[in-house]
Amino acid sequence: MSPDFLPTLRQRFGQQCSTAAALCEQHGSDEGSITAPPPMAVVFAESTQDVQDAVRLCAQHGVPIIAYGAGTSLEGHLLAVHGGISLDVSRMNQVLQVHAEDMTVTVQPGIRRKALNEAIKDLGLFFPIDPGADATIGGMTATRASGTNAVRYGTMRENVLALQAVTASGDLIRTGNRAKKSAAGYDLTRLLVGSEGTLGIFTEITLRLHPLPEAVRAATCTFASIADAVHTVIETIQMGVPIARVELLDAATVGMVNRYSQLSLREAPMLLMEFHGSPAGVQEQVEQVQAIAAEHRAQDFEWAETPEERTRLFTARHNAYFAGVQSRPGSRCITTDACVPISRLADALLESVQDAQDSAIPFFLVGHVGDGNFHFGYLIDPDDATERDRAEQLNHRLVSRAIAMDGTCTGEHGIGIHKQDFLREECGDGAIAMMRAIKAALDPLGILNPGKVFAA
Amino acid sequence: MSPDFLPTLRQRFGQQCSTAAALCEQHGSDEGSITAPPPMAVVFAESTQDVQDAVRLCAQHGVPIIAYGAGTSLEGHLLAVHGGISLDVSRMNQVLQVHAEDMTVTVQPGIRRKALNEAIKDLGLFFPIDPGADATIGGMTATRASGTNAVRYGTMRENVLALQAVTASGDLIRTGNRAKKSAAGYDLTRLLVGSEGTLGIFTEITLRLHPLPEAVRAATCTFASIADAVHTVIETIQMGVPIARVELLDAATVGMVNRYSQLSLREAPMLLMEFHGSPAGVQEQVEQVQAIAAEHRAQDFEWAETPEERTRLFTARHNAYFAGVQSRPGSRCITTDACVPISRLADALLESVQDAQDSAIPFFLVGHVGDGNFHFGYLIDPDDATERDRAEQLNHRLVSRAIAMDGTCTGEHGIGIHKQDFLREECGDGAIAMMRAIKAALDPLGILNPGKVFAA
Ligand SMILES: Cc1cc2nc3c(=O)[nH]c(=O)nc-3n(C[C@H](O)[C@H](O)[C@H](O)COP(=O)(O)OP(=O)(O)OC[C@H]3O[C@@H](n4cnc5c(N)ncnc54)[C@H](O)[C@@H]3O)c2cc1C
Ligand SMILES: Cc1cc2nc3c(=O)[nH]c(=O)nc-3n(C[C@H](O)[C@H](O)[C@H](O)COP(=O)(O)OP(=O)(O)OC[C@H]3O[C@@H](n4cnc5c(N)ncnc54)[C@H](O)[C@@H]3O)c2cc1C
Repeated sequence: MSPDFLPTLRQRFGQQCSTAAALCEQHGSDEGSITAPPPMAVVFAESTQDVQDAVRLCAQHGVPIIAYGAGTSLEGHLLAVHGGISLDVSRMNQVLQVHAEDMTVTVQPGIRRKALNEAIKDLGLFFPIDPGADATIGGMTATRASGTNAVRYGTMRENVLALQAVTASGDLIRTGNRAKKSAAGYDLTRLLVGSEGTLGIFTEITLRLHPLPEAVRAATCTFASIADAVHTVIETIQMGVPIARVELLDAATVGMVNRYSQLSLREAPMLLMEFHGSPAGVQEQVEQVQAIAAEHRAQDFEWAETPEERTRLFTARHNAYFAGVQSRPGSRCITTDACVPISRLADALLESVQDAQDSAIPFFLVGHVGDGNFHFGYLIDPDDATERDRAEQLNHRLVSRAIAMDGTCTGEHGIGIHKQDFLREECGDGAIAMMRAIKAALDPLGILNPGKVFAA
Repeated sequence: MSPDFLPTLRQRFGQQCSTAAALCEQHGSDEGSITAPPPMAVVFAESTQDVQDAVRLCAQHGVPIIAYGAGTSLEGHLLAVHGGISLDVSRMNQVLQVHAEDMTVTVQPGIRRKALNEAIKDLGLFFPIDPGADATIGGMTATRASGTNAVRYGTMRENVLALQAVTASGDLIRTGNRAKKSAAGYDLTRLLVGSEGTLGIFTEITLRLHPLPEAVRAATCTFASIADAVHTVIETIQMGVPIARVELLDAATVGMVNRYSQLSLREAPMLLMEFHGSPAGVQEQVEQVQAIAAEHRAQDFEWAETPEERTRLFTARHNAYFAGVQSRPGSRCITTDACVPISRLADALLESVQDAQDSAIPFFLVGHVGDGNFHFGYLIDPDDATERDRAEQLNHRLVSRAIAMDGTCTGEHGIGIHKQDFLREECGDGAIAMMRAIKAALDPLGILNPGKVFAA
């Protein structure tokens, strides 16, 4: 890197550019368990032109550039492992265009999911993808995120219609449009969704919205065992019940959530469910699921009677991660994210519970189980290398189990740095070679978030 | 190309290789209106190894290789514009693995959609994607096909879970797995879906299946005008009614279908609808749509009372293309395939009807209108260059109209040769450059179906 780089960057971006240590530190770390030296500067982009100029400067000087949304990713996505700068797009947070009549919206990448839903709620529409954290739409697009509603509404893969992105050379491209389907050439939109900032930086994102359901009901239901809860889920999905949300927590995790969110839920393996539809449709779904649950010796359903109660329950679920971390003060969390075909969910989960219990490492367990996706959070002492190793081995065995069941190492968090070995195990060398060839073709200098998804 | 190529090919493939003129002719042409000299040989692949060996031989000799499924594509996809051989995969037509409990199936690429559905129907499952022709799953994957059920069940984009493919160097890769969602690296599956044989040749395809609906009802309903029919559709979609099929035919096309399929449908603008769900759910949908239709001065719904009647109606719809072509003996058909946001459907359609009527070129008009997708078939005299030009101009104006409405030039047929200028108009040079870079990276010799999607 030439010594002109930082001065040129400062000259172009003025107050929008900072090298303050704390800021750089914050932009070069995450909730995960890996660390790296911070980026050398943070640039706050306020426009598409800013993004283009920053990328062009980096291209001229061969400097890595790492897009930054809300910083809630978990796998080392933001770490400046090859140096470079962080490009914070959180100030690009406007809703640009709403087409209520088509249920689409175009936003800037820095808007957060809650702010987006706030902005559109008077239209009777909502955007369903809800990672536990209040992430940005850009970050969610880049990680192919999902959340509790994905079982019914899909993930970012299904809900991003079109993108505007800045390429590695600073050019602006558009992919897709507002048509619901298209067979027009290579699916660049889907290629960029999930590319973790390594193929382009999004400056506009067009999303599908969904009508706020006419009727909503939410309930918790506890079971004598995790197996009973999981089999209830499997049969619900196999019957084709269009359940909107179905989350699993094990007994210990319910306890952690109770303490963190001041709730008094029954501390037993629990499903947290939500049903969307017409009043009659919801009633039909509820009866179907109650019948299945009864066969698995469920306790009664406890209904959240008001919208506030519902929000309280799901907020508590969304905070399960922090509830878990707080349950062991000073701990860091290694989060697993396997996703398996629904018929294998019980095996994948129960074998992994047994393994974790045998290891004696404290953990929490939650899951978007309707999709076959679940998260263990192994709560480790960051200063204890043995513990970290044991947790990583647990994670590795869990992933190998999922892959052997024709599942994936990551349902929604992405690869970042932390899951690169798992990706290789999952896809094989051929697919990785294809990914590398695409990366080399679209970013020949390797400046866009290098070292993520696979080693640079 | 070296003179050894054909002898070497013959040696490797024996009876599976043919240079018979009629066979080559048939493999190098389609229903569309463009022609080119035929491929020099046809190889019938019977195994993944055959596909690998054929690709490797072509790579060694720098010879183009064009995968061939059922030959029903419409945009010149199969034309040997740069010479080379056709690789017919229709003998690779086995169901390899069914996982009824996960609603997934893995098939060879040469199986046709009807045969697949025949094979799985006893499991209570079906595969919904249904182009009018009885296409192969490989061809449908390569064109990102859809059909009448897409409004409810999605297209090949949403229903292909994983692929095994032979790359341009003859290597075998796997993309994806049977997990319902995944954030594991670049989405190679979605990149390959719709790549028209230019990035890889599929040898195994894993699909999502759907439960056969508990209740099905189908009806036709006629309207005083196309506008009334279209507004009924728009409001149905905007209300979020999960209708399974909603097809439009204009009055003249109903007449053509009547004559071709020996039916006696009322010759007026018509919607052909199907409702799937629980009995109560279907009833709810029917009432909603009937109320909307009534506001648009619809005639009564005529119900298809038996499964046979339903099949007869939709088979007639699927044959509308041939009914159209037969209505003008000796004609060839130029098919449009625009798809627009649902709120713009009436404008896009009605302006295009007016334009076509003004041109005095005979046409038929059908549409998967629930998705905003519709097809004019301009029926031209293939020996009349003026007529062809006028039809191409109609098509071009229609596409420009769709693009101006934030739609696409092709909802489901793909680009092939015929729509390359439209693709450029739609995506802009930046996106095309990105597609070309990907093609060059994954197929540096340019042997996989060169000259399709964009010029070689
Ligand atoms: C408590 C907690 C719960 C969570 N629960 C879930 C969950 O349920 N489901 C789920 O999917 N995830 C979950 N996550 C993970 C995280 O929220 C998601 O990965 C989220 O998508 C990250 O968004 P972000 O805005 O924070 O992105 P960041 O962390 O800022 O960035 C993530 C990646 O996206 C890239 N990026 C950011 N913006 C852009 C842009 N404009 N253009 C191109 N690339 C960009 C970055 O370079 C980086 O590679 C959770 C995290 C936490 C801490
Ligand atoms: C009457 C009629 C109605 C139609 N209606 C519809 C409709 O409603 N919806 C719709 O989407 N389409 C429709 N089509 C178009 C056509 O049926 C689709 O494009 C279909 O997907 C083509 O499949 P195929 O097996 O015939 O492929 P082919 O025509 O044989 O090939 C199409 C393309 O796929 C590639 N290909 C084939 N097999 C493979 C493989 N194994 N690996 C990689 N590439 C491969 C070929 O190289 C070519 O580029 C219709 C066509 C007709 C004639």
